[in-house]
Amino acid sequence: MISWLIEENSYDKDKISANGNKFLIGNGYLGIRGTLPEYEKDQFVAINLSGIYDQVGNAWREPLNAPNALFTYVEFDGQEYRLPNGEPSTNTLALDYRYGLFKSKSSFGTDKGRLSIEVERFASMVNEHCILMKYSVTSDYDGELNIYTGIDGEVWDINGPHYDEIRYSIQEDVLISNALTHENKDRVCVSEKIKYNFEAKKEKVEKDNKLVRKISIDAKKGFTYEIYKFITVYTSKDCKNPIEESVTLVRNIWDKGYFKLLEEHKREWDKIWDTSEIIIDGDDKAEEGINYSIYHLHSIAPRHSKSLSIPARGLSGQTYKGAIFWDTEMFMLDFFLNTEPDVAKTLLKYRIDTLEGAMKKASFYGYKGAFYAWESQENGYDACSDYNVTDVFTGRPMRTYFKDKQIHISSAIVYGIMKYINRTGDYDLITEGGYKVIIECANFYHNLLLTKVGSEVYELRDVIGPDEYHERVNNNAYTNRMAKFTFESALDVIKMIKENKWKPEEEYSLEELESKFEDASCKIYIPKPEDKTSIIPQFDGYESLEDIEINRLKERLLNDKEYWGGAYGIASDTKVIKQADVITMLNLFHKEYSEEVMLKNWQYYEPRTEHGSSLSACMYALVACKCGMPDRAYPFFLKSALPDILGGGKQWAGLIYIGGTHPASSGGAYMTVVEGFGGIYFEDGVVKARPCMPEGWKSLKFKVSYLNKLYQVNIENNKADIKQIQ
Amino acid sequence: MISWLIEENSYDKDKISANGNKFLIGNGYLGIRGTLPEYEKDQFVAINLSGIYDQVGNAWREPLNAPNALFTYVEFDGQEYRLPNGEPSTNTLALDYRYGLFKSKSSFGTDKGRLSIEVERFASMVNEHCILMKYSVTSDYDGELNIYTGIDGEVWDINGPHYDEIRYSIQEDVLISNALTHENKDRVCVSEKIKYNFEAKKEKVEKDNKLVRKISIDAKKGFTYEIYKFITVYTSKDCKNPIEESVTLVRNIWDKGYFKLLEEHKREWDKIWDTSEIIIDGDDKAEEGINYSIYHLHSIAPRHSKSLSIPARGLSGQTYKGAIFWDTEMFMLDFFLNTEPDVAKTLLKYRIDTLEGAMKKASFYGYKGAFYAWESQENGYDACSDYNVTDVFTGRPMRTYFKDKQIHISSAIVYGIMKYINRTGDYDLITEGGYKVIIECANFYHNLLLTKVGSEVYELRDVIGPDEYHERVNNNAYTNRMAKFTFESALDVIKMIKENKWKPEEEYSLEELESKFEDASCKIYIPKPEDKTSIIPQFDGYESLEDIEINRLKERLLNDKEYWGGAYGIASDTKVIKQADVITMLNLFHKEYSEEVMLKNWQYYEPRTEHGSSLSACMYALVACKCGMPDRAYPFFLKSALPDILGGGKQWAGLIYIGGTHPASSGGAYMTVVEGFGGIYFEDGVVKARPCMPEGWKSLKFKVSYLNKLYQVNIENNKADIKQIQ
Repeated sequence: MISWLIEENSYDKDKISANGNKFLIGNGYLGIRGTLPEYEKDQFVAINLSGIYDQVGNAWREPLNAPNALFTYVEFDGQEYRLPNGEPSTNTLALDYRYGLFKSKSSFGTDKGRLSIEVERFASMVNEHCILMKYSVTSDYDGELNIYTGIDGEVWDINGPHYDEIRYSIQEDVLISNALTHENKDRVCVSEKIKYNFEAKKEKVEKDNKLVRKISIDAKKGFTYEIYKFITVYTSKDCKNPIEESVTLVRNIWDKGYFKLLEEHKREWDKIWDTSEIIIDGDDKAEEGINYSIYHLHSIAPRHSKSLSIPARGLSGQTYKGAIFWDTEMFMLDFFLNTEPDVAKTLLKYRIDTLEGAMKKASFYGYKGAFYAWESQENGYDACSDYNVTDVFTGRPMRTYFKDKQIHISSAIVYGIMKYINRTGDYDLITEGGYKVIIECANFYHNLLLTKVGSEVYELRDVIGPDEYHERVNNNAYTNRMAKFTFESALDVIKMIKENKWKPEEEYSLEELESKFEDASCKIYIPKPEDKTSIIPQFDGYESLEDIEINRLKERLLNDKEYWGGAYGIASDTKVIKQADVITMLNLFHKEYSEEVMLKNWQYYEPRTEHGSSLSACMYALVACKCGMPDRAYPFFLKSALPDILGGGKQWAGLIYIGGTHPASSGGAYMTVVEGFGGIYFEDGVVKARPCMPEGWKSLKFKVSYLNKLYQVNIENNKADIKQIQ
Repeated sequence: MISWLIEENSYDKDKISANGNKFLIGNGYLGIRGTLPEYEKDQFVAINLSGIYDQVGNAWREPLNAPNALFTYVEFDGQEYRLPNGEPSTNTLALDYRYGLFKSKSSFGTDKGRLSIEVERFASMVNEHCILMKYSVTSDYDGELNIYTGIDGEVWDINGPHYDEIRYSIQEDVLISNALTHENKDRVCVSEKIKYNFEAKKEKVEKDNKLVRKISIDAKKGFTYEIYKFITVYTSKDCKNPIEESVTLVRNIWDKGYFKLLEEHKREWDKIWDTSEIIIDGDDKAEEGINYSIYHLHSIAPRHSKSLSIPARGLSGQTYKGAIFWDTEMFMLDFFLNTEPDVAKTLLKYRIDTLEGAMKKASFYGYKGAFYAWESQENGYDACSDYNVTDVFTGRPMRTYFKDKQIHISSAIVYGIMKYINRTGDYDLITEGGYKVIIECANFYHNLLLTKVGSEVYELRDVIGPDEYHERVNNNAYTNRMAKFTFESALDVIKMIKENKWKPEEEYSLEELESKFEDASCKIYIPKPEDKTSIIPQFDGYESLEDIEINRLKERLLNDKEYWGGAYGIASDTKVIKQADVITMLNLFHKEYSEEVMLKNWQYYEPRTEHGSSLSACMYALVACKCGMPDRAYPFFLKSALPDILGGGKQWAGLIYIGGTHPASSGGAYMTVVEGFGGIYFEDGVVKARPCMPEGWKSLKFKVSYLNKLYQVNIENNKADIKQIQ
């Protein structure tokens, strides 16, 4: 049994950034970093919005943070109590991750006694535009209390400011901020209305880049002064009149009251957990880690949309430009397929709707077909820069090739769509544009195929595989196999079109495509396990790179923040890789390899992997399970499940801040429990399992959805009991 | 009329290194840097040997410097006069480049009067093993004079020491040093014997890493004390008993005497100049520059061998590892073809004899055919490192791709051989192995050809062209055209074999090769001039690089010595190029392009060229002449002719010292005068000219050899008078 509560009981200024991620709440429309109400932009406060972006000058394009209507602090007897200034005598941050409730409690010792401030807040799961907060102040002596609360327009941005203008207004009791973005003149409107359980001596509103009420009270000792904040957020992407909508909604929810809204919110969460909770008997740490991971995925799932995806750092801020990476399809999708297939569909619909952007990108580089954005924003715009890393030695931007050479991105989309239709039996995604995505991705890879003159072997050269430390390599095993998968999928889709006599909008010559993809699928070079060692070379020439232990390699660092990859990074000319690469391929295509090959490659590549990406550990965990080594998998499972609890992970790439939550890692932790330890797989319409549980796990229970039916899975003693329940 | 004398009349310690190059003498077997006899290794003294190399540990493999038997200094009245210590009152360095005579005169003012030291020395053109020096001391007051003279074994090395051991011995009056190299245990033996015009008070020999005589004299004012040094050098590459040979020879020449040897030496130079001197009436600076350039080429021509080539820095030291680059075939060969075809043959024979090394190199990289060494030493060993540049910011070696991606090197060999046979009519070079070189180079390029699946266009990807600032590019125009040239040459050679019914040793299937090379030659992609601009893109995507003026680019430098190329150099992502690239192609294949295309490309690329290589200026000069712009060509001609006189040129690449002479630039200056301004070309057995002389040139006279005949060319008023004279 777990407590569903994560707590942090000491106050440490250095943890403000990490705690912002750890205590994040959200509802897919917005994410609210786990910061205190009195914090400002220097403390990385963010109400991060999904699917809306802005660019200033040539700086990176990134998602918007809304003006912060949670902003609140107190003054007591003329003294401000406003962290991070001063020292609290106690400070607790807590997250009830069952219900997405952020809580905090700070108390301050003064000459006369003690002052306590408590906070509870949530981003409504019932209506994604709503944020609610309860703010309570208690002292054990009488005094003059001023509570300042309102909207802070001094928004934290990495590459901002994004609002050319923020207009503040007041309509009766509603405070309103109306901000206009720089690039597209989008509007972001935040309305706020409060309610309180006391008689204020005076209330007046002040404006100074913030719109803030000053509420003055003759405070009596022992009485808890409570303020309830009702906040709504709308943008011009949501509706025509975001101000009107937000003001109307804020009045409605004000009428309803905090506790009713909280109750509805919790009921919604209970429903969500009903199909997604995982119960592990015998390992509370794992149970907590996996459900906390699932919590994060739920908090950022775009349930409010039919076509939207999840950024690599969720809704925890502007890191990685709020962009969608392959993380979504390859690491998060399985969770949603098993628990909420509609969300999975929304994620993939986003890719179908951004096909045009992918075709434009391909065409920009002189290729046919669809080359999906490495860092996808609205309309499939690729936010990825040609210069993603700053050289710590020169301060210059370094040319990286993530955008133009990491071609495996397109195959991830194909992989996601194929998995969706096979898992749900819902072929609408194919007929509603999925077929075109798949054919155009296959066209893209076909257009990239090279062959030596006189040879029948097709190659993919000058690419980057999942391991980003080795740039511009030839015949990356993962990339080539995924390209082959794309050709195979295109052939499947063409067969479906023919068999079902669908009429695609495009005038494809299906026969021509079929023969082209058939040929490519047969002749594309897939690196084989070496005869003697069974090792699959990650790319051409990998075997002749310097073999050095990671710890010895680290000794070569001249600067902690220097980039390991690129042309001259410490890892570039060595066998040390950033993350699972061949192992990722083996996980996906394990049916094609013997357990021995998987084991030997695991043993070979694992010590050479820095795990510098949060996408690495789960792949090693999954393949370890497939090799019957759950206890070797276990530490990698924890690494996947806990990064946001532990506040670890890389915070820097060169001089670029990359902190935030790790939803792909959460999705990886989920896959490890369900598909690794649980050994669940889907075959011929049947949910099957080959469990492989870590020592100490007495039982493992969860539900999975397959072909529109829901199954309860109970595993004990490595035996699975699988029952259809809906 | 020129004086044939280069002089430097002021003493400047900072010029010691540059003057070592400027006043270099040599005879193809050895080069002697223009340093004073009293200098030691800190002053970059070198008697640099051709064709013999050594490697210590993992350091760069480089040619040997012999122990310095010229070493001599004086002590007068107990005071040493030994530069660079102290200050001379006058100091003159001079080079009589008509006869390869190094001269110096230093005088020192003392309390009592003046002491003068004069030096004259030469590396015999009659016998390449001999070095002669006359050393004279005069004072205008009496005193005790000690002359120290002998062999200095403290040799200057960049990556040494190369002698594990130097044994000194004395046989009667002969001082002998016998040094053993580290890697191959080669022997380098130097013998020295002296003669002098005075009675010595005493002579004794001292040893201390040097073997030095101390000759004591009661010196009388006004008398000139002369010492004649006779020195011989042999290595175990020359003969079985190098000690014996060198001792015997030194005695012989001692018997002959300095003046007779000098006379013979001068007669040999007169013979050499007879076919190679260039007379320019109306421009002494140009006449001096071109004949000084020719002097350098003569001083390093391997006349003593049948199979040896010329390093990129001649015999001026160990820079660039004493290795042979494409410089020889592409920049120096024309001079020897026109003036001494036998030397041209020797240079090319070296390539034929190192074919095995080229085939090994290809095979190492997984290719068929012959991939010649980028930096060729004996047996075609590629001395080029994977790490040629040191990062000035980190001190780390930077991975460069000169060795593995600069594939145009093989085509240079083919180009040289084809030019030799067409120019001399001597087909022996083909039957004696040249045919195999050409076929294997064609096999190499054929093996590298890539094509997009379904395309009929053949590409060469991931290469470096002449411009080294842009690494790993696709379809470099120069490289692709040279590969096509190689296919065409192989077809020519196969035709010769068939027509002449030669029987090659190798069992080539000539028909198969013919159809393969025919196909490749037709389908290889040659970048075309763009429709609107007539600009030929240097490689795929060149046109989309940043266009920035060179001076503005330079402002981005953070460190004077930083490397402009590589992955992150300041030039790498811009259109700024190191040296002529498209222009080099246009010079070679000018018949295929209109004058307009040449002119537009010249105008486009010239301002974008840093001319950071000494191979650049002459190509711009030659193409300018082909566009009828001799006065635009003229400054580039001077740049080619004068680098060693002016002591300019880059001294550093990153942290690596690259100083030395610039024989390719000398060869380029020669081509500019004869083929550019003189407009000489060879067609259908006839020497023809399309002169294009700079303003002020009244006449231009030189001789050229063609098809075993010698022609006198006299040009006046842009009209050429060409007469066969032998």
